[in-house]
Amino acid sequence: MTKKLVFGHQNPDTDTIASAIAASYFLNQTMGEETEAVALGKPNAETQFTLDYFKLEPLRIIENAETPQVYLVDHNETSQSVKNIDDVEVVGVYDHHKINFSSNAPLWFINMPLGSVATVLYYEFKKSNTEIPSTVAGMMASAIISDTLLLKSPTTTSMDQPALEALAEIAGIQDYEAYGLELLKAGTNLSSRTAQELIDGDAKSFDFNGHAFRIGQVNTVDIDEALARQSEFEEAMAAEGYDNFLFVITDILNSNSKALYLGNAENEVAKAFDTNIENNVLNLPGVVSRKKQVVPPLTAVF
Amino acid sequence: MTKKLVFGHQNPDTDTIASAIAASYFLNQTMGEETEAVALGKPNAETQFTLDYFKLEPLRIIENAETPQVYLVDHNETSQSVKNIDDVEVVGVYDHHKINFSSNAPLWFINMPLGSVATVLYYEFKKSNTEIPSTVAGMMASAIISDTLLLKSPTTTSMDQPALEALAEIAGIQDYEAYGLELLKAGTNLSSRTAQELIDGDAKSFDFNGHAFRIGQVNTVDIDEALARQSEFEEAMAAEGYDNFLFVITDILNSNSKALYLGNAENEVAKAFDTNIENNVLNLPGVVSRKKQVVPPLTAVF
Repeated sequence: MTKKLVFGHQNPDTDTIASAIAASYFLNQTMGEETEAVALGKPNAETQFTLDYFKLEPLRIIENAETPQVYLVDHNETSQSVKNIDDVEVVGVYDHHKINFSSNAPLWFINMPLGSVATVLYYEFKKSNTEIPSTVAGMMASAIISDTLLLKSPTTTSMDQPALEALAEIAGIQDYEAYGLELLKAGTNLSSRTAQELIDGDAKSFDFNGHAFRIGQVNTVDIDEALARQSEFEEAMAAEGYDNFLFVITDILNSNSKALYLGNAENEVAKAFDTNIENNVLNLPGVVSRKKQVVPPLTAVF
Repeated sequence: MTKKLVFGHQNPDTDTIASAIAASYFLNQTMGEETEAVALGKPNAETQFTLDYFKLEPLRIIENAETPQVYLVDHNETSQSVKNIDDVEVVGVYDHHKINFSSNAPLWFINMPLGSVATVLYYEFKKSNTEIPSTVAGMMASAIISDTLLLKSPTTTSMDQPALEALAEIAGIQDYEAYGLELLKAGTNLSSRTAQELIDGDAKSFDFNGHAFRIGQVNTVDIDEALARQSEFEEAMAAEGYDNFLFVITDILNSNSKALYLGNAENEVAKAFDTNIENNVLNLPGVVSRKKQVVPPLTAVF
């Protein structure tokens, strides 16, 4: 049996890392394969939290696949894969995305429109009555929590919760909601990033009828914790030199936002969101989408 | 719930028809779907045998899909599908072929390199603990027999036999080998086709160092029964007017062939296959492949 690599997409997230680990274990156990789970980049803060929690080492990082045959997880499009993907044979895919794929031979291609690839793999384990080691189950549970934002994202399906509950039990996670909050918080750990990185990391520029706006957004699980750095943010926002800067801080768990506003159109901005601005802060209940819930009311008011 | 069609490839075979029936039932039972299994053409003789055996009507035949969303079985490439495949959304695929597919959204895409799609679907039923009605199981068992030539084809995998045994039991087929022989025989029922159709249906022309050859081939489960029409075949072969005509009759169950030869190179042909020609008949034990076992020795001898 020739060794085969198993890996997820570039800029790996928790589902991609967990799925590579889980798929590699599954293939070795059930298909007599000799696979190694690897990654196309460093773990992000959320993934590192799960690795630390379950006392696992980060996966070996590759740019090119060194084995002639490979398994893909959490992606199927060549543009998201290793650099030399066209030079190797994909013999299996576990995914939950849209498909853009071709092969020269039949292969295992298991794609399901579920919340995470970890969910897909959970049912593959279950189908074949294969026991899941507790650390692997812990990574998989973390992946479901991550991809579905603790079962609250609109991508969540009816198959995700049973998978998460079963995996959490195997992993010895007694309260997966509490664990999930910690996990997501680790992923939105703003403290490791500078104020300038945060306000500008995702920012875009807009022109509302002659009013130049810069609008940034960060995700968090604790808006107030983030707002503790308000003066830091305001300093960074002012330093950018835009006429108007709106920095939206979104609670991804409760689907609410607060925003910091610096500029000369306080009345219009307050009116756009039907609220008051106190100490530069707007309360934006129910707002999560810049594209659908922030830009349109500003467009309307100007 | 909007109705969705489920269909296999053009020129349907038993696996394509059985898979459409089985997938439609599975989707209606387990996914709350309202699907209809349809076909892209008339059942062939083998499929008609299974339909008659299990007292099922042939599927409704379509050229274009009338529903905006469809499921594909036993194929994934648009060239093998309905004419208007690019105008509808594929929401699920069950297949066992190489892949050449793209979508705009995540979907169910279950492709496994197994002997038949019926095998793939058997494990889907099993995974979800869904009972298979006996007639559906009968069609699925027939599909496995058909695609794997009763588990003897090189495409057979270790997952096909357990699936066939379980399905045969559900279907009340007590001796699946005996049933399978009948089934395959129905599929290779040469009696319904004229001698000219048989000798020329699959024939190709070759030139061996100036010697023009026509080589035809048919599959059967009973070479002697086929050879009962020897004089008819010879008449048809002579009427074609080739210098040399070799008509190979292959026993797909025992992987043997006999061939009828008409021409002026009896010695060379006999030498090529290290045998004698008696009454125009060559015995070709172990020969099943024209490309790999008939053409090369003729090339060598001339």
